[in-house]
Amino acid sequence: MMDASKYKVGYFPVSKEYNKWVEKDHIEKAPIWCSVDMRDGNQSLVIPMSLEEKLEYYKVLLQVGFKEIEVGFPAASETEYEFLRTLIDNNMIPEDVTVQVLTQCREHIIRKTFDACKGAPSAIIHFYNSVSVAQREQVFKKSKEEIKKIAVDGAKLVKKLAAEYEGNFRFEYSPESFTGTEPEYALEVCNAVLDVLEPSETNNVIINLPVTVEMSMPHVYASQVEYMSENLKYREFVTLSLHPHNDRGTGVADTELALLAGADRVEGTLFGNGERTGNVDIITLAMNMYSHGVDPKLDFSDMPYLVDEYEKCTRMHVYERAPYAGALVFAAFSGSHQDAIAKGMKYRAKNKLHQWNVPYIPIDPKDIGRTYDADVIRVNSQSGKGGIGYLLEQTYGYNLPPKMREHFSYLCKDISDHEHKELKPDEVLNIFEENYLNLTNGVTVTDFEFMRDKDNVKIGITFAKDGEETEMEAEGNGSLNAINNALRAYTGAEYTLQVFTQHSMQGQGSQSVAASYIGLEKEDGSMFWGAGTDTDVVKANTKALLSAYNNMIKGGN
Amino acid sequence: MMDASKYKVGYFPVSKEYNKWVEKDHIEKAPIWCSVDMRDGNQSLVIPMSLEEKLEYYKVLLQVGFKEIEVGFPAASETEYEFLRTLIDNNMIPEDVTVQVLTQCREHIIRKTFDACKGAPSAIIHFYNSVSVAQREQVFKKSKEEIKKIAVDGAKLVKKLAAEYEGNFRFEYSPESFTGTEPEYALEVCNAVLDVLEPSETNNVIINLPVTVEMSMPHVYASQVEYMSENLKYREFVTLSLHPHNDRGTGVADTELALLAGADRVEGTLFGNGERTGNVDIITLAMNMYSHGVDPKLDFSDMPYLVDEYEKCTRMHVYERAPYAGALVFAAFSGSHQDAIAKGMKYRAKNKLHQWNVPYIPIDPKDIGRTYDADVIRVNSQSGKGGIGYLLEQTYGYNLPPKMREHFSYLCKDISDHEHKELKPDEVLNIFEENYLNLTNGVTVTDFEFMRDKDNVKIGITFAKDGEETEMEAEGNGSLNAINNALRAYTGAEYTLQVFTQHSMQGQGSQSVAASYIGLEKEDGSMFWGAGTDTDVVKANTKALLSAYNNMIKGGN
Repeated sequence: MMDASKYKVGYFPVSKEYNKWVEKDHIEKAPIWCSVDMRDGNQSLVIPMSLEEKLEYYKVLLQVGFKEIEVGFPAASETEYEFLRTLIDNNMIPEDVTVQVLTQCREHIIRKTFDACKGAPSAIIHFYNSVSVAQREQVFKKSKEEIKKIAVDGAKLVKKLAAEYEGNFRFEYSPESFTGTEPEYALEVCNAVLDVLEPSETNNVIINLPVTVEMSMPHVYASQVEYMSENLKYREFVTLSLHPHNDRGTGVADTELALLAGADRVEGTLFGNGERTGNVDIITLAMNMYSHGVDPKLDFSDMPYLVDEYEKCTRMHVYERAPYAGALVFAAFSGSHQDAIAKGMKYRAKNKLHQWNVPYIPIDPKDIGRTYDADVIRVNSQSGKGGIGYLLEQTYGYNLPPKMREHFSYLCKDISDHEHKELKPDEVLNIFEENYLNLTNGVTVTDFEFMRDKDNVKIGITFAKDGEETEMEAEGNGSLNAINNALRAYTGAEYTLQVFTQHSMQGQGSQSVAASYIGLEKEDGSMFWGAGTDTDVVKANTKALLSAYNNMIKGGN
Repeated sequence: MMDASKYKVGYFPVSKEYNKWVEKDHIEKAPIWCSVDMRDGNQSLVIPMSLEEKLEYYKVLLQVGFKEIEVGFPAASETEYEFLRTLIDNNMIPEDVTVQVLTQCREHIIRKTFDACKGAPSAIIHFYNSVSVAQREQVFKKSKEEIKKIAVDGAKLVKKLAAEYEGNFRFEYSPESFTGTEPEYALEVCNAVLDVLEPSETNNVIINLPVTVEMSMPHVYASQVEYMSENLKYREFVTLSLHPHNDRGTGVADTELALLAGADRVEGTLFGNGERTGNVDIITLAMNMYSHGVDPKLDFSDMPYLVDEYEKCTRMHVYERAPYAGALVFAAFSGSHQDAIAKGMKYRAKNKLHQWNVPYIPIDPKDIGRTYDADVIRVNSQSGKGGIGYLLEQTYGYNLPPKMREHFSYLCKDISDHEHKELKPDEVLNIFEENYLNLTNGVTVTDFEFMRDKDNVKIGITFAKDGEETEMEAEGNGSLNAINNALRAYTGAEYTLQVFTQHSMQGQGSQSVAASYIGLEKEDGSMFWGAGTDTDVVKANTKALLSAYNNMIKGGN
């Protein structure tokens, strides 16, 4: 049963003076990215990754270009310990990459964490403790001072051990459950930790502000981050990091607004994997920046590959509507959208535009390894002539005249509607071929010759129907006109040749192929369509004419 | 290939004076909701809904409590026309519900739309035209004046036809692709439309600002909405509506911030169905408000039912991490999260709290028809003693002593790790029963009697092993002590009974059942655990003792 009185806001807004971020309207520079796929991501899987799967996924993270990767909580998990040791012992950490390990502020766990890192070229020791009101009261049953002491003692220990152990260590501290904590108290704890760690030019310290559970609207978090950014001690030597989750479906907004508010770094995962509703999706963040002209410093140029690897290693499925990556996110089924996209693509080609601004498609799908025909224009009973025509033209080179395009689109929509399914491009082609192209289910031409003088063409042509051949002679002001006259004389049919267009086909190898389209109109205004292709333009026309005629006598396609 | 120079920002920010919304920190009142599931939602499906599926889904929307439902674009689709006629002709529109129909600003389409609405108790005629820079240039190739005229002519026609047709009509106008439009121009067009429609106390008009494609960060849209809200004419008689899509993954944030900025109404869908990345998800919006103590005026108290219906009718799958609705969004696999949740739940029960504030769970899953055992505490190789113990206690009533809980959790994690799978609650129970409860694979007791005087218990007990019975006598300061002395004398084993706890089981009917837990420690410090249940407390203790002993002689569980 729903009862809103069970709830009240559980976050702590800061003073309104920390709203300066709102005056910026977009992000101008990529933050430092840290992947927590191996930690938060893995921890949230129904079946966590095996060592082999982790190694495979780690390589994907390197390919994408992450320079900071949280590899686990080695003191708490045997698999995560083994994974880290495998990376170190097999020299699998590139020079410009830093591994990050998570640890609670407890002595034996911190010690085991340093043991686990032995020999790493460089490592970030990420220590945390929960500081929220709820955790202080319900879980730890400790006062603010006692909770702060946990953090400070943790800082002292990591500092001491970093000096004792061989290796190149940086420090990261998270006031865990930051979003459920009084900001002044979180600040006090962070500054106490910084006083221990003494950040400096050569000792940059990361302060990470986790949205462990999303509790507020995104702008409230952004202002909290601005407050922290302006009041943290040693700020110039502190990297301010974000770690948003997505319980309210606004993890991306949290991150983006908080970056405007002064944050320098983002912890997140590919495809937003992570506990519950997930961690913030780094793909969306990076591609959002990209769509505003900012180089995200990560490489998503082969999104289908990333989707495959992710699905294989995590056993999760990328949601069909996940921004940039989902199967349906560039898809246009509706007629008006398809029409605008088709016009936009033509406008773009005609004007040789570098800048992308096609309606309804936020970025060029080709940038991330997706395709127009399979991903964008998709045909079902909601589709229209613009899209279906565009698909046939772009994918197979057939540029139908507008009225024929309309006729063809109704045919496709009807089939989709009745068969209750989407039509793939090859099925659309199939419908075109079966209904319009080179149809011989009626009258055919078995032979013809023609003679041209100045204004006139004379032809001799042999028609066949039901195995019976008939020779006809006719004249006209061109070959098509003459053939049409012959056909009318042969059949006695009443119609006018209302539409005729022709173009050469592209991409047919060395031999140029012509495609012809013909529309015949009967006295009652009904139209019948045909198409023909041939290396000989006259033959292409003849085939198109006969296709249209054969459609007419069978009562329409 | 990625090349950020192909992109630049394509939206138009407004003056910084329209940032007043940022001073509010949460939404205080539910907006008017309009479902566009039957329109945008349906139009985005690989296989659109059939008439029967639409009717079923429509009933679900009524159950949820929508009072405004966009039922389609009846002039453009035969199915949508039929659907609307079915609703009207079968009196399926409740008195307090208004159906909304979409139409382009084209005369024959508007006329057909009014035809389709004939007899509707009340209907919103939603007319639109595209006003963005890209569409003006690429698709319509018209000037600003010409595009405005389309809107104004549309407004004149709907007004005229509303007067002619029988029925109760309201008007909604959308400057489509608002987010790609200069706000001053969008305002000019909307005000021109309003001048025609003349909103008044009895003629409230809806102006809807579609995020047709998400192009900016959410706060930029919010400020645009504040600009529109403050500068629209007839504002007191205008309902300002939002229609966000989700291309940048921030549709929820767009909506929430824009509601702070003055919007009154939201068009969206259940589960965020809709073109490409979807329309804004009304479930997330409503539940976000709910989690802040605001009654959303929609009923999501049976989320599993809604998920089922949605998946059946649309053939889409609700993403595992979709806020509030996804299968994994309340799940805690990790030990530290489970521990905090378990402590929080106990704290809540002990203090009889009305207010929800359990760590890591944004709302009480039970509010929306979900359960703790199946949805929250989930056991795999990442889990810990807190969660596993809590699950065994909450679901099956076994409250293990802390050290036994730890032992048991390692057992479960190992099994999950080796079998590479999640353990369901009944499997956890099974592991408990097989490894601790009433174990008879060794020594059993076939008979015993005891006599108690003031400080002493004397017992006669018959042990059996491998079919051979042995009678023993012993004394002790209590029955368990005496039985244990007898067992040690019988077996000659060296151990101490280190841990003993007992509780009555709940929910076992009229007969009270006792559960006992015993930990035996060997000289080397290793611990062996057993549990026993019986309606007789002494028998329960005896079973627990023998279980622990039998575990010890076989070398541990």
